[in-house]
Amino acid sequence: MPSLNELRKQIDNLDSELVDLLARRLALTQQVGTIKQGTGAPIYMPEREAELLEKRKQEAEQKGVPPELAEDVLRRIIRESYRTQHVHYPQTYTGSGDVVVVGGRGALGSQFVSMFERSGYSVKVLEHADWADADTLLANAALVLIAVPLNRTIEVIQRLPKLPDKCVLADISSAKAQPMAAMLGVHGGPVVGLHPMFGPDTPNFVKQVVVVCHGRAREHYLWLFQQLQKWGAVLTEETAQAHDHAMTFIQVMRHFSSFVYGSHLAAENPPLATLNRLSSPIYRLELAMVGRLFAQSPELYADIIYDNPESIAVLQRFQEQLGIACAQLQKGDKQGFIDEFNRVKDWFGDFTQSSLQESRKILEKAQDDRSFISTEFQ
Amino acid sequence: MPSLNELRKQIDNLDSELVDLLARRLALTQQVGTIKQGTGAPIYMPEREAELLEKRKQEAEQKGVPPELAEDVLRRIIRESYRTQHVHYPQTYTGSGDVVVVGGRGALGSQFVSMFERSGYSVKVLEHADWADADTLLANAALVLIAVPLNRTIEVIQRLPKLPDKCVLADISSAKAQPMAAMLGVHGGPVVGLHPMFGPDTPNFVKQVVVVCHGRAREHYLWLFQQLQKWGAVLTEETAQAHDHAMTFIQVMRHFSSFVYGSHLAAENPPLATLNRLSSPIYRLELAMVGRLFAQSPELYADIIYDNPESIAVLQRFQEQLGIACAQLQKGDKQGFIDEFNRVKDWFGDFTQSSLQESRKILEKAQDDRSFISTEFQ
Repeated sequence: MPSLNELRKQIDNLDSELVDLLARRLALTQQVGTIKQGTGAPIYMPEREAELLEKRKQEAEQKGVPPELAEDVLRRIIRESYRTQHVHYPQTYTGSGDVVVVGGRGALGSQFVSMFERSGYSVKVLEHADWADADTLLANAALVLIAVPLNRTIEVIQRLPKLPDKCVLADISSAKAQPMAAMLGVHGGPVVGLHPMFGPDTPNFVKQVVVVCHGRAREHYLWLFQQLQKWGAVLTEETAQAHDHAMTFIQVMRHFSSFVYGSHLAAENPPLATLNRLSSPIYRLELAMVGRLFAQSPELYADIIYDNPESIAVLQRFQEQLGIACAQLQKGDKQGFIDEFNRVKDWFGDFTQSSLQESRKILEKAQDDRSFISTEFQ
Repeated sequence: MPSLNELRKQIDNLDSELVDLLARRLALTQQVGTIKQGTGAPIYMPEREAELLEKRKQEAEQKGVPPELAEDVLRRIIRESYRTQHVHYPQTYTGSGDVVVVGGRGALGSQFVSMFERSGYSVKVLEHADWADADTLLANAALVLIAVPLNRTIEVIQRLPKLPDKCVLADISSAKAQPMAAMLGVHGGPVVGLHPMFGPDTPNFVKQVVVVCHGRAREHYLWLFQQLQKWGAVLTEETAQAHDHAMTFIQVMRHFSSFVYGSHLAAENPPLATLNRLSSPIYRLELAMVGRLFAQSPELYADIIYDNPESIAVLQRFQEQLGIACAQLQKGDKQGFIDEFNRVKDWFGDFTQSSLQESRKILEKAQDDRSFISTEFQ
């Protein structure tokens, strides 16, 4: 039997081999990226990815390697290959004309500007200071993309001069019903609403969800959908009304409750360092989800919460629900808590188990990342 | 330039090599595990792990591989090696006597039973039905570990017969002040409180935090700390009072607010499948964190929330804070929201940025795991 030191040397050598292998694989996927730019194939091909993973998982099983290990490692490597392929993209629009991004110097707007530029489009930006030249900037527009803060979206749409008849008018704001009504009102040509479900800190569009709401004359903006897909985005269709209703829960409720949670913590002033030290990954992550909100723009969240017409009623009922739970607690009514718990469990259905599994995988990853210093007890 | 098909074949071959390499590495770390069982070295050695990662990150940098990629891949592989090394452990107690786990058939209790058995201890279990034999079961105890549900902990401690003088009395409940006072009251020998910050679904103890509260005669239970460390646990010391205060925020506030969030969702009854489909990883994860609560035991969470003496006051103030935020919203007082947001941001300090970074890494992992089917738009 080899000694511990010999084994460690062998492990180190194997890990060097692994780094080598990563370097060779990245070189290959860079070549794939170059070819895809030439042929116009999309960067993210779900079927190819699924097939590749399936084959390696089967092989892992045969070789006594846990398939989940092979899958996790490969998925992480594949993420990197998407990132390095991400230089230029094929262009899906075959006509002529400019892409004009209104608010194109903003955080998310500038990301769209960069993506269109790297796909070979002629891109123009219309910012606050440029309204005097709006007519000229927009004269040859094939696409006008509204990418201004939510609370200025309607006003900006209404300020637009008459656009070319065939020009596509689109927005990327986080509400859809009112902006789309405004766009349909000012423009008689193709109109479409987009809601990219990610922030400006996302490295690229691969596997990112973009909600699309059809407006008018879809045959004229299908190229835009295809363009988003070339970038790797995943499109999902929804009506503007259903979208906005869902966002009341996805965004408003979530951000508002994190806001109140943080606000309460600050008022109670517990020792934050102690909370972190005593927390297991799940509690650390939940605290981080609150903390991360406050690293971002208060105006953005104020708009999301305050500008949603359903907010007041939904949050009022949230307040009532909290009141019921607090009253139960004061009465020491554990059975009431347990009954309500079971009622909610039934409502969630299978989602509770899938949540447990999904979050467990993510928490294991959080656990991997932790580093500790040994404590000696004497 | 090779064709896309040729490149894909090369990538597939490289991925096969990778699976091979994983198999070889797991074989090596299994040998390391066997040696560690013989020499008594702990399964998790933070310094060795840190050094190994540092060397490979430097090598990655030299070879043009992003160091974070090498680190993430290695951390994932290392997790697996901890899991496969996890069969038998060295024993740190050198005296004679039994380990008696009261509640040792419970979810977390049985995990402790298994760990002690796999470390060579003589382990006995005292369950509901065994109290008639308690005197015999406990006569030769070197350690009595109370592992019953929180709301039965005090009653069980007070029911214990007189223990051997040198016997260590310990508990693993999620409150510490009252159980420790009870243990110190019934037993004149060594007493220590433990709070494992993880649930029964955790695969092993590696990198898991256990809070330790000193009771009496620590020189007699240091072997227990060392035993937990051999299993890979990370110990952190706290007073019982500071521990309980921190848990009001770490556990009570978090579970209570997730409970009310779920309760509100069920009452509002939005289409859950739509919420999931439209959500980006961060919202999916936040929803999953709520969903996972309801996959678990209502009694456990009822105990955690209702049995903490600080709960009522802290949650009352939480309710007031929510009332303030709701009133602000009704008045349309965006500036008030922004001012409060900035006040909380200041309170969190550097934590907001570190939260953003920590959660981003985890969300990227969540993103890697997603699979999609291509939609064709026509």
